[in-house]
Amino acid sequence: MARELVVSIDAMGGDAGPGIVISALQRVAQRHPDTKFLLAGDEAVLSALLAKAPRLKDRVILRHAPDRVAMEDKPSHVLRRGRETSMWRAIEAVKNGEAQVAVSAGNTGALMGLSMFQLGIIDGISRPAIAAIWPTLRGQTVVLDCGANVSATVEQLVDFAVMGEAFAHAIFGLEKPSVGLLNVGTEEQKGNDEVRGAAEKLRAAAGAGLAMAFHGFIEGNDIAEGTVDVVVTDGFTGNIALKTAEGTAKLVGQFLRRSLKRSLLGQIGAFIASGALGVLHRRLDPRAANGGIFLGLKGVVVKSHGGTDAIGFASAVDMAISVVRADINSRIVAERARLTALVPA
Amino acid sequence: MARELVVSIDAMGGDAGPGIVISALQRVAQRHPDTKFLLAGDEAVLSALLAKAPRLKDRVILRHAPDRVAMEDKPSHVLRRGRETSMWRAIEAVKNGEAQVAVSAGNTGALMGLSMFQLGIIDGISRPAIAAIWPTLRGQTVVLDCGANVSATVEQLVDFAVMGEAFAHAIFGLEKPSVGLLNVGTEEQKGNDEVRGAAEKLRAAAGAGLAMAFHGFIEGNDIAEGTVDVVVTDGFTGNIALKTAEGTAKLVGQFLRRSLKRSLLGQIGAFIASGALGVLHRRLDPRAANGGIFLGLKGVVVKSHGGTDAIGFASAVDMAISVVRADINSRIVAERARLTALVPA
Repeated sequence: MARELVVSIDAMGGDAGPGIVISALQRVAQRHPDTKFLLAGDEAVLSALLAKAPRLKDRVILRHAPDRVAMEDKPSHVLRRGRETSMWRAIEAVKNGEAQVAVSAGNTGALMGLSMFQLGIIDGISRPAIAAIWPTLRGQTVVLDCGANVSATVEQLVDFAVMGEAFAHAIFGLEKPSVGLLNVGTEEQKGNDEVRGAAEKLRAAAGAGLAMAFHGFIEGNDIAEGTVDVVVTDGFTGNIALKTAEGTAKLVGQFLRRSLKRSLLGQIGAFIASGALGVLHRRLDPRAANGGIFLGLKGVVVKSHGGTDAIGFASAVDMAISVVRADINSRIVAERARLTALVPA
Repeated sequence: MARELVVSIDAMGGDAGPGIVISALQRVAQRHPDTKFLLAGDEAVLSALLAKAPRLKDRVILRHAPDRVAMEDKPSHVLRRGRETSMWRAIEAVKNGEAQVAVSAGNTGALMGLSMFQLGIIDGISRPAIAAIWPTLRGQTVVLDCGANVSATVEQLVDFAVMGEAFAHAIFGLEKPSVGLLNVGTEEQKGNDEVRGAAEKLRAAAGAGLAMAFHGFIEGNDIAEGTVDVVVTDGFTGNIALKTAEGTAKLVGQFLRRSLKRSLLGQIGAFIASGALGVLHRRLDPRAANGGIFLGLKGVVVKSHGGTDAIGFASAVDMAISVVRADINSRIVAERARLTALVPA
């Protein structure tokens, strides 16, 4: 039997409130009978909700937090004055060893600030990154950094490759995930000093017992093609690429709707196609945009989309459980050590 | 009557060959009776094609070039050994004042290299940029730099804003185009030093008689939203955003097709919707990707998509004519001078 695991939840984060969280945990509880939940939030509100959730009986530890982080709060403000918030308490439970992973649908900047402050960064890793999962023609791909940083040095890009490999292993179950560096062309001489430097290091170490299979450079269209399992880029480019992709998906949907409306036959077609468009909409769910996982911390923190529903929040908790069960941080530490030994900084 | 204009054409560039070019020019000739074409390429081949194109009689100057640039030629090789190519001769005609603008469907890197070498950069502009036109929910938007450079300093981003404004004026006829700087958030403190520095300069000059209306920061999803008329970014991010958007559009189309195929009703819907999908495909034509215009040079060079058809090549020539008629370089020089006076480097 799998060892018992505790997931710490910021029950007051996000737009939807704790009702969504409790509803999501009822789903997760059924799928993962060996998991408990530490719920940080307003005790009175949560107790009332739990009374109507028999499936969570004996599965929940309540942690009262009188305050909550608002979506518009600045990270610096939360760091100074946020000790009484549900977000702080949820991360604190990971720091204290009461839980193995934290999940929040709250303010991304504040969550990253509190996570770095309370948990600290893994030794040997320079900066944490936000990884997201993108749909592709072949399935799914991990993309990082999606915006934790506004630039990346050679060493940071190498760290992102290490962390992305471990994440792809944990969630896709791949033994040797392929890793590509996002660039403006695939030839060796293309790009800026940072991507060329990182490629040189990863190429030098490839084949020497690394967990990842380094693919080399990829271009923007390779993300949706699913050319590699892990796409590595700096947080500036990653964030812009992610939001550009979202905008494009929305644009294509709108164009299609407008084009169909132009004729009666098209309107009939649109009606018949609406089921398929629903499936499409779910597959291209912008959930990934505000979501993702914070990697590189001494502890794992999952950010669920702020405006998500119970199904979305449940899938964020599922991801948290998979990642912890795969012992992602041990894999990160081991791969980073191999790389440092093979190609010293 | 508009003054007579000569468009210099690399008739041997691109995958499709000179047949496409002649066919495209027949369309353009009809729309622009006051335009002549200087055709650089193999004289025997071109003469044979022109014999079958009566509409181009007396409208074409032939410039023999025995060689041509291949798509896989390195720019450095073409610079050293490309004097006999149709691409070199086409740009040379602009340099000599025989033509006002050059159009080529050939190798982008070689075209940029030859253009910079032969024409030189406008005084006061630090680097040229590639601008492309993107479809948006509200119409079209200019995006630059789409890959002429792999990074951009504060001054270069300011130059791109100046050039993008002049391009939007020339092709959309806007009196005061709005200009946004692509960033990871819209608040003043967001982003890296380069975008923050450029925003500070443009903000400081805004309202003081500039041709552009500076909007501030925008995010990736704002491109497809059509939030601004001109999107300014460095060539690394711009190239990746452009290719990511293309990949996403393709992905959405594929998902839709797959979803529809799952049911008989869906298959009927797909059949009825196929006309609309055709319209959609044309609107999201990846023509822009390899295409665009080179700005910042003493002369204008338009890059048509390498794999384009006659309609695509004709629209590239139309764009070249609009841009020259609007005297884009005078507008660039004037706006750059205003900015330098208001906010010295």
